[in-house]
Amino acid sequence: MFVPLSPLDFKRRARSIYATREAVVDGAARWTYAEFFDRCDRWTVALQSLGVAPGDRVAYIAPNTHAMLEGFYAVPEAGAVMVPLNFRLLPSDWVYMINHSGSRVVCVHADFLDLVQGVRHEMPAVEHFVALEGALPGWHDYEALIAASAPHFAPHARQESDLLTINYTSGTTARPKGVMITHRNAWVNAVGTLAHHPMAPGDRYLWTLPMFHANGWTFTWIATAAGATHVCLRKLDAPTVYEHLERERITMLCAAPTVLITIASAEPALRARAPRGVRVLTAGAPPAAHTIERVEGELGWTVTQVYGLTETAPFISICEPLPEHATLTLAERAVIKARQGVELATSGELRVVDETLADVPRDGETVGEIVVRGNVVMEGYFRDPDATERAFHGGWFHSGDAAVVHPDGYIEIRDRLKDVIISGGENISSIEVEGVLLRHAAVQEVAVVGLPHEKWGEAPHAFVVLKPGQSLTEDDMRAYARERLAGFKVPKGLTILAELPKTATGKIQKYVLRGGKAGIAAQ
Amino acid sequence: MFVPLSPLDFKRRARSIYATREAVVDGAARWTYAEFFDRCDRWTVALQSLGVAPGDRVAYIAPNTHAMLEGFYAVPEAGAVMVPLNFRLLPSDWVYMINHSGSRVVCVHADFLDLVQGVRHEMPAVEHFVALEGALPGWHDYEALIAASAPHFAPHARQESDLLTINYTSGTTARPKGVMITHRNAWVNAVGTLAHHPMAPGDRYLWTLPMFHANGWTFTWIATAAGATHVCLRKLDAPTVYEHLERERITMLCAAPTVLITIASAEPALRARAPRGVRVLTAGAPPAAHTIERVEGELGWTVTQVYGLTETAPFISICEPLPEHATLTLAERAVIKARQGVELATSGELRVVDETLADVPRDGETVGEIVVRGNVVMEGYFRDPDATERAFHGGWFHSGDAAVVHPDGYIEIRDRLKDVIISGGENISSIEVEGVLLRHAAVQEVAVVGLPHEKWGEAPHAFVVLKPGQSLTEDDMRAYARERLAGFKVPKGLTILAELPKTATGKIQKYVLRGGKAGIAAQ
Repeated sequence: MFVPLSPLDFKRRARSIYATREAVVDGAARWTYAEFFDRCDRWTVALQSLGVAPGDRVAYIAPNTHAMLEGFYAVPEAGAVMVPLNFRLLPSDWVYMINHSGSRVVCVHADFLDLVQGVRHEMPAVEHFVALEGALPGWHDYEALIAASAPHFAPHARQESDLLTINYTSGTTARPKGVMITHRNAWVNAVGTLAHHPMAPGDRYLWTLPMFHANGWTFTWIATAAGATHVCLRKLDAPTVYEHLERERITMLCAAPTVLITIASAEPALRARAPRGVRVLTAGAPPAAHTIERVEGELGWTVTQVYGLTETAPFISICEPLPEHATLTLAERAVIKARQGVELATSGELRVVDETLADVPRDGETVGEIVVRGNVVMEGYFRDPDATERAFHGGWFHSGDAAVVHPDGYIEIRDRLKDVIISGGENISSIEVEGVLLRHAAVQEVAVVGLPHEKWGEAPHAFVVLKPGQSLTEDDMRAYARERLAGFKVPKGLTILAELPKTATGKIQKYVLRGGKAGIAAQ
Repeated sequence: MFVPLSPLDFKRRARSIYATREAVVDGAARWTYAEFFDRCDRWTVALQSLGVAPGDRVAYIAPNTHAMLEGFYAVPEAGAVMVPLNFRLLPSDWVYMINHSGSRVVCVHADFLDLVQGVRHEMPAVEHFVALEGALPGWHDYEALIAASAPHFAPHARQESDLLTINYTSGTTARPKGVMITHRNAWVNAVGTLAHHPMAPGDRYLWTLPMFHANGWTFTWIATAAGATHVCLRKLDAPTVYEHLERERITMLCAAPTVLITIASAEPALRARAPRGVRVLTAGAPPAAHTIERVEGELGWTVTQVYGLTETAPFISICEPLPEHATLTLAERAVIKARQGVELATSGELRVVDETLADVPRDGETVGEIVVRGNVVMEGYFRDPDATERAFHGGWFHSGDAAVVHPDGYIEIRDRLKDVIISGGENISSIEVEGVLLRHAAVQEVAVVGLPHEKWGEAPHAFVVLKPGQSLTEDDMRAYARERLAGFKVPKGLTILAELPKTATGKIQKYVLRGGKAGIAAQ
């Protein structure tokens, strides 16, 4: 019997069997699953009354609020396509994405109303602007529309190949591209994630990860599939995170490594408030073994690394624990946990290949590109057949990430292909060098990039954020690295920064460091 | 990106990342995943050399051996359809199923060679008979065919809607029907089971459940998806089970309630050999709360009840633990665990309906029929469009099982629809009565059926197997039941039996009890 695979089926199910369980917490407000989906359905009806038809796009600019989460159900329930935008970008970026996606409706959180209003005239195809919170003349009021709508609509006959979302890549090197995720893509990622990292109705999930980032790694739907509670988080500073951890008795969260560093580096009085046993999925950038060691050792949490891209819905590997890992020390295990691991049971075939698409040897040394074929891989880039063709050349989706395969089959990312430092003919993994420097007692964060060098063509340079009250000289750094790394990998220079330039999703913008060392150092 | 969903993808993945892990144990023999799949591939090639083409059927009559397990990979890899037959049936049953399925090849374990040879002339369409172990003139030798074949073949371009297996229902009331399970059906069941009841590479799975029964509830593929070890089990007596539990350090198994009773009733010296913490999935018949209580309390295992049918690949509900259950006593929790629970996140919409397909109220009292729509539901019955149409009338698959829905949404089976006892106009659940009698100190097993009664039309009658050295009179039984049940539910009569008549899968054959009380009582 064929029934289309869709994360909206988790909504139907949760409403049936978890109706009275707590679905969403947002500040002082709480909703059961019955109440939450009643709101979602009213919003579906309101969208239809605004003229939204199947296939139309609806864009969102909002932090992790209940209204943002409602969009992930109400928009697709109308057969339309959710377009969650990165709220940390510039208004000119939003204009590009909204126009490129052809969104007919744009929903905006209070914090961004004025910014969007300022560029409203540049988006002539948008028919309706909706203020999710706050108000502006000429804008619809979200709560008023919901209150005016009945929670009943004729269900849209969907197919599993229908578009569910368009997620714009952060575009550090080119124009943002719109990743087309289908209902089937998201369903497979959600179910596969649960198969490897189960959740249950008792779980309380903290929204540290932005929902706009690959649909919150599909936890917008996964937590609902499990009957867990979504705990919204509007600000990501340490006191707010710890307040929610404690008050809401959080059991699970997802976070990029940079957020884990923020959490692990909080002052002891805050750290003491954290519940123990929190399960963490981390992805978005390779975490240093040292970061994992701190979170597991000092907080008593469990960290599992997953890996993927917006284009892969997102997970294509998980650092699966093996029974033989149990006998390792915390530090040894952290080294393994810093690897990206193996393909999920559901995500499809993952390979690391050379330029001829042949597998690289499993020697932990030979670097190749990660490619994948599977049901989590996007349909393509929206209205960009050339970029789509490039991404899929040879019949495999090309990640652009460079990795090695260890003898146990676990992959480990060495770099974005373009971030490999080639110095004197040797390939240097900036991540390897960063992993070493991060263990230095004075170092809080570090990014290593290749800078032009007279003799070697290119040479590694370290950009470091120090721990409070610490200092570090270039000689100190080099002496420390020389004891732990091959000579050619030792950074030739050091720049101390107050903070590293990052994308909204916590990825360090190495191109900024590479291009503007002087400018940054002068800050 | 569309890639057909298939459990064979778990084979590709396990071979890649679990190649050196132990895949299969069968007595003294052990194979890694690399070795095991090398054998499977050679058998695929051998099948092709015997003329097996995509779409052809290949039947198996074998207990839980490595050769049987190999069939679940090698046959579909050739694009053919696996037809695992119940080896406890009569040769005339096998003849019917082999002819009905149109199997071109029949693979038979040593124990059944002579029986099959005796009816060979009744199966003129079968082209090849293969002895999996043992030998007979005119039969192929399985190991010789494998040894003579290279492990390389041109992969079959499969679709997810292709037939994977045909599983014959046990046919207690009518001719066996051939349930058509697709690659997509089995994949969705496998992944959904893992999402609710995860397994990992460290797990060691004991094959207490027959592989022929709904493809071993798809654990033929689930254990491989998890990188766990399949531990074959050729005999189901208590000493053999406990020997394997101890020697192979088993962590998980599946078993019908009757098998759980066998395990829980073993002598103390055997029970002391069992590892603690074994996770058990039970299904096939509703287990009594008392059975669950004994297995959890005395062995320190965890029992989770699942429910489904061969027609549903098989799981359509799971008794999901809720956080509020944690505060219950063992006995209170066992009562909840004896319920069939809620639909899985993946299995599709499950309802309990009256004759008009309207939902029954969630009152724990009103009995309706369980119906389901979802991706685990079979394509239909092989070459039986009439039975298929009846099973799917109104667009829902009809289970034939009668259940109530509790206020928390958990369903609880009261009976096969045809097994409900109607006495003096009142509906009596035989399972409810059985659950009470099973708590009596003298009772080991019990089946309650409706027998003709002058005054009430029909009245419940109890068939009981006693614990060793115990006795029970009809008056004792009635007094015990009267204290715990409404008067009309108290059995009017008692028959003591040495054992209950059961199907090969452990379901009590109530039609035998109903039809032949005198004959059975005289045994």
